Amino acid sequence: MQFFKVKTVEETFALIDENIAAAAGTEVRELKESLHYILAVPVTAKENVPGFDRSTVDGYAVRAKDTYGSSESMPGFLTVAGEVEMGEAPDTKVTHGKAVYIPTGGMLPEGCNAVIMIEHCEDVDGLLNTYKQVAPGENVIRAGEDIKAGEVLLEAGTKLRPQELGALASLGITHVTVFSKLKVGYLSSGDEIVPYETETLSLGQIRDINGLTILGLASEWNVDVIYGGIVKDDFAIFQQKARELYEQVDCLIVSGGSSVGAKDYTTDVIQSLGGPGVFVHGISVKPGKPTILAVANGKPVIGLPGHPASAMIIFKLFGERIIRLLKGEVIQKKPERIYARMTKNIPSSPGRSDYIRVRLEEKAGEWWAEPIIGKSGLITTLVKSDGIVEISSEKEGVSQGEYVPVIPSR
Amino acid sequence: MQFFKVKTVEETFALIDENIAAAAGTEVRELKESLHYILAVPVTAKENVPGFDRSTVDGYAVRAKDTYGSSESMPGFLTVAGEVEMGEAPDTKVTHGKAVYIPTGGMLPEGCNAVIMIEHCEDVDGLLNTYKQVAPGENVIRAGEDIKAGEVLLEAGTKLRPQELGALASLGITHVTVFSKLKVGYLSSGDEIVPYETETLSLGQIRDINGLTILGLASEWNVDVIYGGIVKDDFAIFQQKARELYEQVDCLIVSGGSSVGAKDYTTDVIQSLGGPGVFVHGISVKPGKPTILAVANGKPVIGLPGHPASAMIIFKLFGERIIRLLKGEVIQKKPERIYARMTKNIPSSPGRSDYIRVRLEEKAGEWWAEPIIGKSGLITTLVKSDGIVEISSEKEGVSQGEYVPVIPSR
Repeated sequence: MQFFKVKTVEETFALIDENIAAAAGTEVRELKESLHYILAVPVTAKENVPGFDRSTVDGYAVRAKDTYGSSESMPGFLTVAGEVEMGEAPDTKVTHGKAVYIPTGGMLPEGCNAVIMIEHCEDVDGLLNTYKQVAPGENVIRAGEDIKAGEVLLEAGTKLRPQELGALASLGITHVTVFSKLKVGYLSSGDEIVPYETETLSLGQIRDINGLTILGLASEWNVDVIYGGIVKDDFAIFQQKARELYEQVDCLIVSGGSSVGAKDYTTDVIQSLGGPGVFVHGISVKPGKPTILAVANGKPVIGLPGHPASAMIIFKLFGERIIRLLKGEVIQKKPERIYARMTKNIPSSPGRSDYIRVRLEEKAGEWWAEPIIGKSGLITTLVKSDGIVEISSEKEGVSQGEYVPVIPSR
Repeated sequence: MQFFKVKTVEETFALIDENIAAAAGTEVRELKESLHYILAVPVTAKENVPGFDRSTVDGYAVRAKDTYGSSESMPGFLTVAGEVEMGEAPDTKVTHGKAVYIPTGGMLPEGCNAVIMIEHCEDVDGLLNTYKQVAPGENVIRAGEDIKAGEVLLEAGTKLRPQELGALASLGITHVTVFSKLKVGYLSSGDEIVPYETETLSLGQIRDINGLTILGLASEWNVDVIYGGIVKDDFAIFQQKARELYEQVDCLIVSGGSSVGAKDYTTDVIQSLGGPGVFVHGISVKPGKPTILAVANGKPVIGLPGHPASAMIIFKLFGERIIRLLKGEVIQKKPERIYARMTKNIPSSPGRSDYIRVRLEEKAGEWWAEPIIGKSGLITTLVKSDGIVEISSEKEGVSQGEYVPVIPSR
């Protein structure tokens, strides 16, 4: 039996980063089917985007110096020599004293270096009156200004948001190598837990709701989920079912039962799945202290507290990071918190991170976080909440009116 | 030909709220397949959750007053009369001077009104030494404390997050009536636009990237998407293809071409789809001024600017709200912005809302928003960005160091 010291939230995140690596599988996917996948190999641009100099406005392609000195009161005059057709290379050159009509996105004719906006000139029977001067390069996007041939457009580990798909499409990339979709499995245990479909409960029973909340959260992170069902508080059965589900998934989540003995053997079941095993056993956090994090032969195993609301908060905090790392994402440090002012004094113990469910209310143009009263076992505290206020471990609570970071729930 | 006054962002949102209603279709779905759907009818609880008084800790069920006066130095003494089994109604009563072992979540035996935590007592061969007094109700969740039979648990229009699924599961609800999944269609137009799969471009051509970015965003909002392809700048063909796609979808998005005349007839094409037609034609916003919003026979039609980056920003701002309302969601006013400090002075015109792409960087414990330099046509400006800073229409820009609201991109 190993002994574990309870970890702080900060230590837990550091241990997660140290222990969790990308699952190995990659695949080549069609670009349009790759939203929210993680790029497994970098993408280098094979051509310039755009491939030619373009106008950013509707106007006239000109030589900039031909417009110098033009103003409302003293217009310049140019001869309209033609028109650029969209999607085609222009057949007219711009020479001294000439202008060519060009729509937004049109290809710049040879000889010009700027575009004068249609609002700043007037075509009077082929004579263009220019009311404003333009500088060289004005209203023009140069070839390669968006993406340069040869540059690394996206690094491995990048999450493909809609804009990344767009940038890849602009290069004509139809397939990308990404990390394969993960399978995440969840197994409930507890003598009192029955399937949520159970119509009538016997006294002492409750329905399994973690199967829906935990796997619901996981599927928000673009993974496939497998519900392993409910096992009774029995070491041998729990171990067997955990092993069966573990074999099918990339990440296993269990919650241990509450019966005498069950708490102790949840750790043993997790340890039995493979080495190196448990790396966090107990986190200095409220709610959710009895959390277990492990790696068994490269697969993360997460032991959640049984209370539904605690389980959700813990899984959102630590499970999301574990799954993103396992997906191969290179996590950039980005703000994921909004700020609000606390409506009440909330005490907390230094050395422990507290997570307070709150409702957000706007008063006089500011957001205020109103704590939701209720024990951590109550699922409705999360239903009523707009987010979770984080009181970090070095604080002794927060005061009324204080600005606090809130993890919003979508 | 109607004439339209350019609208402010605030006016545009008000007009969207006024003009867009939930699409009619509803369906009964399995609860576990209903994540992110919108509830179409309210749900009333048919039973209490929990259905019985439960312990929130491991400990001993007692009569609170039997512990009064107990302390570390002067423990009280009770007789251990039995044990509560998980998932079963206890067979032992708690009478004066008695205590019954109870695990977390266990059902309270008759006669007790509190639970003393295992950490605050000691079972010495059946004699329980109590080192702390407990108050009536302490460490107990009462029947109905989470959800009360007869109460409206969730209102129509509620988005089903994981926690809502959990609360419904706790009641044994297996099916819910939700608004059916929407179909959103997108049609590109422009003589210069070719399919993104095109391997080699002719001069003047660019690949269609809005099909991926706009439909990628839409699919983040739990809708099905249909890509209608690309039409040349020709009124009759554009109208026919728009009509065909309009017939298949609940919301149509088009982007008009840039050729001479194309800009004018995009409005005509949209108007031709049905009444009441266009309600916003031009928004005082940068980028994205030439945005068109319409309703044709109850279906929203959105005319986006052609520049990919402008199209994405406009669709994220206004398209998301349109689609959420169309999905039947009752949108609660909630903060969707984070705050950061601007690294540079950014001028803007009063009366116009500006949206500046930024990279977020942490310096000395604060988030700073660094504007991304680049014209609005460049897709890479969005690839490099972590979010969009909003400079509202009443401001003349923001100063270096000023706190600004940021719409984060996920």
